[in-house]
Order: sequence, then structure tokens, then C-alpha cells
Amino acid sequence: MRAVDLIAKKRDGGALTSTEISWLITGYAAGDIPDYQMSAWAMAVVLRGMDDRETADLTLAMAHSGAMLDLHDLVPLTVDKHSTGGVGDKTTLLLAPMVASVGLPVAKMSGRGLGFSGGTVDKLESIPGLRTNLSAEEFRRCVCEVGLVIAAQSGDLAPADKKLYALRDVTATVESIPLIAASVMSKKLAAGADCIVLDVKYGSGAFMPTIDDARTLARAMVAIGRHAGRQVSAVLSSMQQPLGFAIGNALEVREAISALRGGGPTDLVELCMALGAQLVYLAKLRPSDESARALLREALDSGAAWATFTRMITSQGGNLAFVENPSLLPSAPAHIDLPAPHSGYVATINGQTLGTVCNALGGGRVRTEDSIDPRVGLVLVAKVGDWVAEGSPLLSIHAASPEDARRVAAHLLSAYTIVPTPVIAPALIEEIVSA
Amino acid sequence: MRAVDLIAKKRDGGALTSTEISWLITGYAAGDIPDYQMSAWAMAVVLRGMDDRETADLTLAMAHSGAMLDLHDLVPLTVDKHSTGGVGDKTTLLLAPMVASVGLPVAKMSGRGLGFSGGTVDKLESIPGLRTNLSAEEFRRCVCEVGLVIAAQSGDLAPADKKLYALRDVTATVESIPLIAASVMSKKLAAGADCIVLDVKYGSGAFMPTIDDARTLARAMVAIGRHAGRQVSAVLSSMQQPLGFAIGNALEVREAISALRGGGPTDLVELCMALGAQLVYLAKLRPSDESARALLREALDSGAAWATFTRMITSQGGNLAFVENPSLLPSAPAHIDLPAPHSGYVATINGQTLGTVCNALGGGRVRTEDSIDPRVGLVLVAKVGDWVAEGSPLLSIHAASPEDARRVAAHLLSAYTIVPTPVIAPALIEEIVSA
Repeated sequence: MRAVDLIAKKRDGGALTSTEISWLITGYAAGDIPDYQMSAWAMAVVLRGMDDRETADLTLAMAHSGAMLDLHDLVPLTVDKHSTGGVGDKTTLLLAPMVASVGLPVAKMSGRGLGFSGGTVDKLESIPGLRTNLSAEEFRRCVCEVGLVIAAQSGDLAPADKKLYALRDVTATVESIPLIAASVMSKKLAAGADCIVLDVKYGSGAFMPTIDDARTLARAMVAIGRHAGRQVSAVLSSMQQPLGFAIGNALEVREAISALRGGGPTDLVELCMALGAQLVYLAKLRPSDESARALLREALDSGAAWATFTRMITSQGGNLAFVENPSLLPSAPAHIDLPAPHSGYVATINGQTLGTVCNALGGGRVRTEDSIDPRVGLVLVAKVGDWVAEGSPLLSIHAASPEDARRVAAHLLSAYTIVPTPVIAPALIEEIVSA
Repeated sequence: MRAVDLIAKKRDGGALTSTEISWLITGYAAGDIPDYQMSAWAMAVVLRGMDDRETADLTLAMAHSGAMLDLHDLVPLTVDKHSTGGVGDKTTLLLAPMVASVGLPVAKMSGRGLGFSGGTVDKLESIPGLRTNLSAEEFRRCVCEVGLVIAAQSGDLAPADKKLYALRDVTATVESIPLIAASVMSKKLAAGADCIVLDVKYGSGAFMPTIDDARTLARAMVAIGRHAGRQVSAVLSSMQQPLGFAIGNALEVREAISALRGGGPTDLVELCMALGAQLVYLAKLRPSDESARALLREALDSGAAWATFTRMITSQGGNLAFVENPSLLPSAPAHIDLPAPHSGYVATINGQTLGTVCNALGGGRVRTEDSIDPRVGLVLVAKVGDWVAEGSPLLSIHAASPEDARRVAAHLLSAYTIVPTPVIAPALIEEIVSA
């Protein structure tokens, strides 16, 4: 087999066989196939596409390029969730304890934030003492004892995907639904979950700008799950504005804690109910969406989800005092409100702009080696559809200094459209894509 | 400027600006842009195309990546010819002395054979003493004294093309009309000729399988010439069968010598008249194709072309005795006829198969470092349209040993189709493409 022939086959619109895809990925991971052949192949895929079978083969080949996690000796099944990334997205912090508390073990590998999106691992590390760099042994112990663990993603997971993704990033070959789907799913398959729910966001501040793109990506990922013998479904959710009110690491942990204690923003809770219900249904714990939601509602109301969350914090070394009394969590010294420039209804809030500003305040990273200030961020006051009076706060800026806060005010205002006539907030959840 | 943005622009079907193309090629030639970005860009070009202006910009950028030959201090103009490569194609050996003898200086850089196509430089080197690796000074002296020189192509000519071509070869990005046209024309522009005629062949044994492909390539190359301010036209000629009768280095030199002395195969002479007439017309030496042909006919008939050829041989160090008495040229010890398996009319002769067999006999190279046996080759007896009786010779195999000859017989037979009903030989010259 020669790489140049496989590139030519894809260039001409052909479908590579399972053996060909496996050979290509194995050779690339081993360094036998050079970057310049892989990037030509990736461009051919961007422009010619891949069918569901090819995409599943690519995903499996990348998953098998490294360690394949298997916890079936400890628990009958595990569940997992993936989000395509959004601003203010603290979903995992609420969803994972909810489903773990109803008996679905969650053994989750999470990413760090990069670019304008935050990362669950960064958020959790706002809690003093909490560690996410866990050994395999620690990880397994947490699964056994708590039924819930959230660890920083190991480099052993799908190394071929890591290598290919870095190449795609510099060769303009990111924008391909099959390649994006395979990249996401290769890590999920390697992480071993039996049931996986995908939170595919669309709109400003999301990876997929339109609902059609989001639906296509969701279908591609669900199809991969079907080919790979896993239970997968996807929830298409709107990112027309940030989720909840808080953006920033410690601020988002505080918001998740309120939600676990029975409060919290309704959009955040509603999204977690929708995602959690899918997992409960996929795991056959309940036969319908309605009964699944009732089970999860009970887990929140009874305090079971909260109890599971506190056990996870303790098992990962976190100081529980900071969780039980969130006012102790890192807090920015300067709080400055951003006043509305004129009266009207909030029509749009550009999440990407808010995420970029949060980064500029020190809350995110541009390069992987950057360090993060957990204290800083933004807390929305008005959301889409709300009426604001001129001079009343649109949001509150939490910064390391008043100067930092003032410096971002103009950029923040550019994220808002305020109009004179009433605005209907978009529906949060558009549809469910299942196998 | 970032390479990834230019790749994305082409991926999305955009046209790069002149500045962008120049930046890309300069950066690639300098090693600042890595192979993996260039191959992704090349694949995007294969699948998205380039317009005439982009193609001309690419050609000029590659031409200017190395030395630009300029002989205007020696002669008022130079003419050049390029062939897309064919089996048994000894056109340059006849055409170059013809046009040089009517007063159009030919300063030609020629390639060596690779794959199933032969190379003019290899053919010339069958003549003992003749050198094609000339210094710049020797090259200029030949132009002054003879008005004709054929040298091996220098590595200084369009080095960016050389680097890009090597990359395209291993990334399945050869098959692109704009990239092929730019590659050919970058070397022609760098070699400095004012008037250029292109021999674009189509059919089996040619680079372009169909007349439509050949026409598209010809138009692309003529358009580049127009953008670059050179006089360029193209002759579309059929490669439904090899040109003339001889295939193999010394065998082809012998055939060219016969033609220069007034004999030679009619198809070879006709093609050289068509190509030469274009050069005479482009150089404004004669106002019509008819008067241009008359001038060239006279150059052949008067012995002027032959005299120019002999002066070239001498000026490049060749032993004239071998040219004046071609039976002294290297000759293979074994001559074995290939008998027709049954009676009938020759319908097709696959040139690619014959070229491959000539290589297998030692007459060509698979890798650039292979050495060549100038003696071996094939001499056709029957051509398309001829009637052959069962057992009468289709061709004669010239080999280093009878075993070598017998080994290729079966493969050679596979190049022939012999049918019971009469066959009309295809027209040699289909059309002229001019600016």
C-alpha cells in the first residue's frame, strides 16, 4: 500500500476501505507517513467528504492509536458527555453529579480551555486542593468509591487524533464535518463510555454557526457511535447567548453549586435535564424522556446530586469548605458594572466576544502554556429578551484591577444589540438527534 | 500574511492575489513554508482550480525563483519548443536544426528521460564525445557560433518548480491542468525564449489521454505566455502510436539523421514542419503558415538544416564521424523480430507499453540515478492501418542479448490490436492553439 495512492483515491472522490484507513492512521501515528502526505489527504477529505463507514473507521483507527480505557471490571457501564464548546458552559459540573447520583457512573476526561472557550478542568481547579491530573489508579479508585471522576485528558488517549488535529490546524483542514466528528468521537471511544450524550451548540459563541451545521455534525457523531457499538445521542442547543449568567472559572463553579443546591439559572438546569435524560434513557434506566427527567429532578431536589458532587470534590483532594461556602472561592478585587448605552430590549449577546474578553482579563489562555486567573470573569445581569434602562447594568466585570475592567468595556459593549421593540429569546433546545 | 489563510482561501474557491502567490512561492523556495502546508494548498488547487491570472502569477513566481536566462546581448531573439513527452519522440533532434538553419536561434535546455518517456539529452549522448552538461560560457558560445545548442537542464532553472513538483509527485497533486501548465512554462520562461511552440500530445503513450485534456492544457500554457509577454502557440498531435519507427536512444538519433538528410518517416517530418512553421510565424519571419513551411522545406532540401546539425554536434564535442556514418553509432548485438500472432490490420499500438519495454531492455531509467544502454530499443515495421500477415514482423527488438529480447515479447504483443477489417490511421495533427 502506498500513501500517494490512497490520497489519489480520496482526491477522486472514492471511499477508502477499512484496511486502507487503518494503515494510513497507524502509519501516520508511527511517523512512517509524513505530514505533507497527511495534509494533502486531509484537504482531499475536506473537499470530497467521507461516508459514515469511512468516518467510523477513521474514528476507531484514531481511538486505537493509544490506550483504550475499559472500566467494565469495576462498573457495569459508564456514561460520558461531550460539548462542542461554548462560553459560560458549566454543564458538566452540574450534569455529571446528577447522573452519577442516579446510578450511572461517570468517568470523564475533560479538556482545558483554549481560545475563547473555557474548559471544565480549569473551572474545577478554582477549588483549592482539587487535582485533575490523576494517576490511572486514582482514577479507578474514584470511579469505584464515588461513581464520578473528572480528570484532565491524558496524552495517551487517541494520540493519532492529537497529531492530526495539530496538522489540520495549520493546513486549513479543520472545517470538515467528518474530520471534526472523528476527532471528537475518537477521544470519547478511547475513554470507554458505553452511553454518550453530545451537546452540540450552534450560534454565535459556538463552533457551529448554524443549526443545519450543528445537525449535520450531530448526525455524523451519532452515526460513528452506531458503527462503533456505543449508545449515542445528541442535543442541539442554542448558543445565541452564553449559558446561565457567569463566565469565568470560579464564577462558573459558584453558579454550578447554586444549581446543585436547587437554585441556579433555568437555562443551565434545563440543558442538564435534557442531556441527563438522554443518558438515563440510553442506559435503559428509565423507558421515556419524561420518567428520566423525573428521576433527575428528584436527584436534584433530594440533595443526592449535591452529595455526589461533594464526595467527588473530596475524592479528588478539593477542600470541601470552599464548596460548602462558595464565598470563600477566589474572588476578583474589582467589580465594575457595564451600563447600557441606551434603553431597550437586549436582542443579541455575542458569546464569542464575551469569551474573548474573559480571556483578556486573564481567565483563559491563548497558548497552552499560559496560566489562568480563576477569579476574573463576567456576570450577566440582562439576558436576551430583557428590557434595560439606559445606564442600568448589562453585566458586571470581575477583574484583577479597575483599570483592567475599564480597558475591556468598549469591546464588551460591541457584543450587545439593544433594540426598541420586544424580543423573544430563542429556544434553548432545538431538537434531539438519536441513532 | 499566513500560509494557513492562503490555503483556506483556495480551499473555499477564492483566487489568490499576485502578491499572495509570490509570497507563497518565495516562502516555499526559501524553506519558510513547510511541505505540509504546500501540499494542502496543492490539493486545494487540484480540486478548486486556478484562473488564468493566478496560473500566470504562479508560473512567473516559480520562474523567478532561480536564474533567468537572457541571451539578448548575443542574439535578437531565441526560440524554444516543449513537448509534453511521448514515446519515440525525436522531434527536437530534427526541429531544432531546421529552425536554427533559417535564422531562429535555438538555446534549448532539455530533460533526461524518466518513466516510459525518453529524453533528448539521453538520445544526443548516444553520439560519442557529445556533452550536454555545458557551462554557461560554453552554452553562450554555442548560441553565438552555431545559433543552436541543446544542453541538459540546469538545476538553477526554476528551483521552486523542482521542489513543488517533487512534492506533488508524492501527494497525488500532479493531476491539475494549472499546476502542470505552470510547471512546464516556468522552466520555459526561465530559459528566456521569446517564441515558444508547444507540442501537446494526446492518446495512449501521452501525458494527456484525450484531445479535450490536451486542448485544455494547451490553452492554459498559451494563456501563461500571453500574460508573461511571450509569443506562444501549441500544436495538438496524436500519440495513438509512437512517432516514426524507432524507439531507443541511438535508434532515434539514426532516424533523426535520415530525416535531416531528406528521408525519414513522414509523420516525424510533418510534425516538425507544423511546429517549425509556428515558430517561423511567431518570430514574424514569414507571414503565413504556407510561406513558413516553404522556408523550412527549403532548409531541409538544401542541406542547410543538416549542416547546422553537424555544426552543433561538433560545437558540443561530438564525434562527427558517427553522425556522418550512423552505422558506427552504438548498436545492440541481438535483433529479433516480433511476429504477428494472426493476420489483419493493425488497429492500435500502445506507446506506453512500448516505452516501458524499451526501459526494461535498458534504454530508460526508473530512478534518476540509473544508467542507460544507448543501443537497445524497438523498430516498428507495421504502423496503425497497415495489413500484416500472420508471422510477419510487427517490429524488431534490439536487445543486449537474445534472452532479453525473448523476455519482453509477450508484453510487446499486448501493445497491439489486430483486427480483420481495414483501419484508418488517425490524423497526426488535430489543431493549432494560438494566443
